[in-house]
Amino acid sequence: MGVNVVKLFIFASDAGRRRNHRLPPPGLLRYSDEMTAPRFAFTIAATDGAARTGTLALRRGTIHTPAFMPVGTAATVKAMRATEVAASGADIILGNTYHLMLRPTAERIARLGGLHRFMGWAGPILTDSGGYQVMSLGALTKVTEEGVTFASHRDGSRHAVTPERSIEIQRLLGSDIVMAFDELVALPADRSAVEAAMQRSMRWAARSRAAFDAGGDHAANASLFGIQQGGLDEGLRATSATALRATGFDGYAIGGLAVGEGQDAMFGVLDYACDQLPATAPRYLMGVGKPDDIVGAVLRGVDMFDCVLPTRSGRTGQAFTRAGPINLRNAQFVEDERPLDADCPCPVCATASRAYISHLVRSDEILGAMLMTEHNIWFYQTLMADLRAAIANGCVVAFAAAFLFRYRRDLDSASANE
Amino acid sequence: MGVNVVKLFIFASDAGRRRNHRLPPPGLLRYSDEMTAPRFAFTIAATDGAARTGTLALRRGTIHTPAFMPVGTAATVKAMRATEVAASGADIILGNTYHLMLRPTAERIARLGGLHRFMGWAGPILTDSGGYQVMSLGALTKVTEEGVTFASHRDGSRHAVTPERSIEIQRLLGSDIVMAFDELVALPADRSAVEAAMQRSMRWAARSRAAFDAGGDHAANASLFGIQQGGLDEGLRATSATALRATGFDGYAIGGLAVGEGQDAMFGVLDYACDQLPATAPRYLMGVGKPDDIVGAVLRGVDMFDCVLPTRSGRTGQAFTRAGPINLRNAQFVEDERPLDADCPCPVCATASRAYISHLVRSDEILGAMLMTEHNIWFYQTLMADLRAAIANGCVVAFAAAFLFRYRRDLDSASANE
Repeated sequence: MGVNVVKLFIFASDAGRRRNHRLPPPGLLRYSDEMTAPRFAFTIAATDGAARTGTLALRRGTIHTPAFMPVGTAATVKAMRATEVAASGADIILGNTYHLMLRPTAERIARLGGLHRFMGWAGPILTDSGGYQVMSLGALTKVTEEGVTFASHRDGSRHAVTPERSIEIQRLLGSDIVMAFDELVALPADRSAVEAAMQRSMRWAARSRAAFDAGGDHAANASLFGIQQGGLDEGLRATSATALRATGFDGYAIGGLAVGEGQDAMFGVLDYACDQLPATAPRYLMGVGKPDDIVGAVLRGVDMFDCVLPTRSGRTGQAFTRAGPINLRNAQFVEDERPLDADCPCPVCATASRAYISHLVRSDEILGAMLMTEHNIWFYQTLMADLRAAIANGCVVAFAAAFLFRYRRDLDSASANE
Repeated sequence: MGVNVVKLFIFASDAGRRRNHRLPPPGLLRYSDEMTAPRFAFTIAATDGAARTGTLALRRGTIHTPAFMPVGTAATVKAMRATEVAASGADIILGNTYHLMLRPTAERIARLGGLHRFMGWAGPILTDSGGYQVMSLGALTKVTEEGVTFASHRDGSRHAVTPERSIEIQRLLGSDIVMAFDELVALPADRSAVEAAMQRSMRWAARSRAAFDAGGDHAANASLFGIQQGGLDEGLRATSATALRATGFDGYAIGGLAVGEGQDAMFGVLDYACDQLPATAPRYLMGVGKPDDIVGAVLRGVDMFDCVLPTRSGRTGQAFTRAGPINLRNAQFVEDERPLDADCPCPVCATASRAYISHLVRSDEILGAMLMTEHNIWFYQTLMADLRAAIANGCVVAFAAAFLFRYRRDLDSASANE
């Protein structure tokens, strides 16, 4: 089916009915002949030690790196409109294959014109492969060489995901950055279990590559990332990186971290893992993390991040500030007229006091979750912008030291609220 | 304490800390010498039968009547930012004395500069007296001539509200339109019970008037409405109206309706109640209502309304449309690419499909409540704007007939979803 036929199919059905409404520009929602943007172009504009800053240009938009991707699990960055996510400075968001395949299903989203159109997000979307959630949320999970079968955490219905099916789902969603399907083991695990899962993940990565490349129009417009595994073992990480480079991917994720190993152990892996991966491709540290995790990972050469922390914290009363996280349920804020963070440029800090937000949070008001989430996403995006500027100016180490000094000074006491 | 001293007290504390932040204009948040707007000026620009349209000018802004006031129970119109409420066309919102006196307390809001500043709403706010919620939500309620004592529905703590205390709370909140404290009886009730409560409410109305007038700066800048009672009895309603007119109020509410008597009975009361109240003062029908209730009440001469229906429905999956209400949890909408209402000018209908909103609602996503509430408030505000235009153009009966024909055509089947 040619590009123009696809466009016609997607937009003909409502041409009459929605005549009074502003549809998002079709070019941003479907690949089109008019698109002049590259399929994938990663440009490193400046480096500062191991840290680098640049751009990742995709069909649907350009991502400024290092980048933080807000998590839009179920076709929504929770408690935020797509326009609000974009206003925060986010260039790209993440969608979850596991959640979307269960509800509303990838086939339904495809019939509705893809995930971008469905949720009104015109920029790039990265989709995970579902592997992590299948194993962390699914029940009665069974793993074979073919793939994974599991029961939905929501209704117990049984499902199967293979590398081929994961890629198909991501294609149905219309993902811009597709992740290879991999197998995870919970840490701590013995070396042989970590090695076996890594080796299977490398075979699945090759199957993911083949399935992606057979995707026609989607393959010609989207990108595929491989995922390095190997736990905390440098040798296994090297073997994994070699296998991924042999298959060849547009970008490389570092998987299997941020699963409870602690920041020191994670940084220890990053100290060698980044060098094991191609210097000219983007490096994506999956599921990370706290602001200080991100700062340390950027210093070690990571380009992309995702994490539910800013959004989830926003719904549980924790706000990120440049002086460390604070919990708005605490009594100390009920008459505090200051903004959440006096140095924050976000719309929330421009208008709402800690006292008001504290009232909303303590009253379980939806507006509390809205304002807290918006602020937290702005905090993360502002941190990324500051890191990019510091790298470009050759002062990222000084910036990181100043940021961490202020952020961590009160962290020991504040983190008791987390 | 003079006006300038008050201003200094409110704004000095954060002058240094929030230097980078956009505070709302002080003039909009506190009464000031610079304010040239009238304290209270109700102007009827046009009438069409019993219906009238005009403006109610207050210190903090002008209300276009007939007006619908979104309910901001706990210092938030649930699931909406204040800026979003204003964008919908709402000129005024309602705050609940009962909820705010319990949390965060009127005294705390006063220390924080008043309700407008607290919640970031610069326009007028009407506060109810607390009477209705005390009797519908409070427990172990005891009513004497002095006032009402009750236990909080939230934590069982005991509280007392008298006419004087209700006015004091509304003054502490900084209310623009203060409601007299009244006693309600649940219908059906025998005539003697309705009459006794009405007579007591009239004595309390006079006490409310005296307490309001003793309020100094607040009394010089705010307005006070009396509330007509008398159930479904024309004679009692006449007696109540006479008592209120003798005391004298800026505006007159019609209370004790929309408590289960049915639309026909309510319209029956309105057919005489509006004429019993002064033609030159605004008439406010409390707690009403469904769109067709509002249309019928406007035709009978009502100028102001409030109701939780658009916001509460927005959180339970019911959207108002010009073809009647629809429930987004119903399976029929899961692949419906149309907007909630093709004739709606709201931001939600401009970008989101029923399919997407259905997914959000069925997934209990906060964004579902946000978008549904925003649409419903726009629906109500657009209906009020249409009614105002129809009255001004002398065609309100034709407009009402056309609106109700389309709105009710599918209402019998759709209302099963409510």
